[in-house]
Amino acid sequence: MAFRTALTDLFGIQHPIVLAPMGATAGGRLAAAVTRAGGLGLIGVGYADDAFIEREFDAAGNQPVGIGFITWDLAKAPQRLDTALARRPRAVMLSFGDAAPFAGKIKKAGARLIMQVQTLAMAREVARLGADAIIAQGLEAGGHGGDPNSGRSTLPLVPAVVDAVHPVPVLAAGGIADGRGLAAALALGAAGVLVGTRFIAAEESLSHPNVKQRIAMAGGDETLRTRVFDIGRAIDWPEQYTGRALANDFSARWHGNEAALRDGLDSERPRYFAAADKGDTGTMVVWAGEGVDLVKKVEPAAAIVARLVAEAEAALARAQASRL
Amino acid sequence: MAFRTALTDLFGIQHPIVLAPMGATAGGRLAAAVTRAGGLGLIGVGYADDAFIEREFDAAGNQPVGIGFITWDLAKAPQRLDTALARRPRAVMLSFGDAAPFAGKIKKAGARLIMQVQTLAMAREVARLGADAIIAQGLEAGGHGGDPNSGRSTLPLVPAVVDAVHPVPVLAAGGIADGRGLAAALALGAAGVLVGTRFIAAEESLSHPNVKQRIAMAGGDETLRTRVFDIGRAIDWPEQYTGRALANDFSARWHGNEAALRDGLDSERPRYFAAADKGDTGTMVVWAGEGVDLVKKVEPAAAIVARLVAEAEAALARAQASRL
Repeated sequence: MAFRTALTDLFGIQHPIVLAPMGATAGGRLAAAVTRAGGLGLIGVGYADDAFIEREFDAAGNQPVGIGFITWDLAKAPQRLDTALARRPRAVMLSFGDAAPFAGKIKKAGARLIMQVQTLAMAREVARLGADAIIAQGLEAGGHGGDPNSGRSTLPLVPAVVDAVHPVPVLAAGGIADGRGLAAALALGAAGVLVGTRFIAAEESLSHPNVKQRIAMAGGDETLRTRVFDIGRAIDWPEQYTGRALANDFSARWHGNEAALRDGLDSERPRYFAAADKGDTGTMVVWAGEGVDLVKKVEPAAAIVARLVAEAEAALARAQASRL
Repeated sequence: MAFRTALTDLFGIQHPIVLAPMGATAGGRLAAAVTRAGGLGLIGVGYADDAFIEREFDAAGNQPVGIGFITWDLAKAPQRLDTALARRPRAVMLSFGDAAPFAGKIKKAGARLIMQVQTLAMAREVARLGADAIIAQGLEAGGHGGDPNSGRSTLPLVPAVVDAVHPVPVLAAGGIADGRGLAAALALGAAGVLVGTRFIAAEESLSHPNVKQRIAMAGGDETLRTRVFDIGRAIDWPEQYTGRALANDFSARWHGNEAALRDGLDSERPRYFAAADKGDTGTMVVWAGEGVDLVKKVEPAAAIVARLVAEAEAALARAQASRL
């Protein structure tokens, strides 16, 4: 069981499934497990340093993996791209910020350039920059993404991007946590999917065990897009991005009261980090996309990949069988 | 070419496509055209009176059609439901408000009860009320729907609702404007789709010709969810609902300045209605979902239905062909 698409051809992989490079979650062990299972694993740098990059490539062993940066954060310490490129990643994914300063270097190093966008206009822009694959990310995605005032949702965004950037392969991101989502993405014309939330609950992910359990138990109605976790950690995300997370005590207290949170940072910031150290999901952020409804348990990445593919085949077969 | 699903079985129709009952747009002529083309047409009552209902059923002639109400508005003049039921509609669709006072009467009259929801929790609730079909509406939908702070997107909402309300047929709404969207909805497990924006640009729709042209030209990046058009018209929508429309001069001026708009209603309201009378789309609302990228021209409803089905078949065949 496998799908052949422009994405699987581009990377010589078996399944059109890419691990979202989630900071502090998608380490080398998870990325390697996704690659080993036939997809493409991407290490998530987040705000981490060169030592993290070295360590996680080591953890990936000899499995070919890629890496993903937060573009505006990469710009603050751009030597990290050299550190990553020295490890000969299969792909470098850039999200959230101006990719122009990095695109040429990545391609010259022989890595594939994957760029994530949140609107149709951004898709046209990164196609001009020479993206080898473009990820159309909807607001239902977990973690950082667009703002509800200007962002888009996955289902209508994907076909519009496919039409606009043809023949560049387009991946769907946001809301895809089971094989029905993968099948839908292929029907929309995507060449594959970027999956985040489902892999937080992979055994190999770096997330705290409490976080994995919350993901396995939570529902999509419980998520919200907010800035309060970035404010609480004093991370300076540009105004046009928000993050989708599970609502908890912290968001209940501060969402809508962001100015007060900023005023109270001297006490809130240490309180936040102390809670995060303990895996206290009532205070720490648990990034989660709306697809979290479909995540029922913690399991190995290989089982997740296999089930995504099997379910997608069943979903397409069922839809096809409804034809008269 | 046709699809057989639980929805087509429920209504004895050929295609799993339902016309969204858009107020002031989905009149009897459009509803009849969609039914004649093999789908199910629903007349949209909006805020209109009994005379409108009578007139639009007359306009539908002998084609079997249904009707859709805004539930909180129906509660203000509930005799309109009797007026509608006297015309023996195939279905009555209720959206936005407490359906409990109306559900029993609709079913007793022999009409199918279709209920639209914006969250998984609401889907569970209307399943208990005895909905014959449930529409899972994502925030990407045009016109009224959920609020970005609590609402959901179509792609992850549909499979979660399908799992929760089985075996009640689920329709996908929001972002579906071509056959790729229909194919994706079927892959997600939906029994059909509710299509709005695409049918605004139908020749038979009641919308102003300028509105149809705007829909044919506009892109999804240009839409936003806002309350300003409801405030400007002094229509008292409950706080939990917003509407997606094309950004224009009016929204640029008032979105984010809602209190000032309320203060200025004495002059803004007449200015709004004067513009609407002239079809001035710089001021009047043009409801549009994010799928508007995919709407390229004004054409007869029958052509829209036929193309949705043909494109869906092609999309599923393409996805199936990618299987190894």
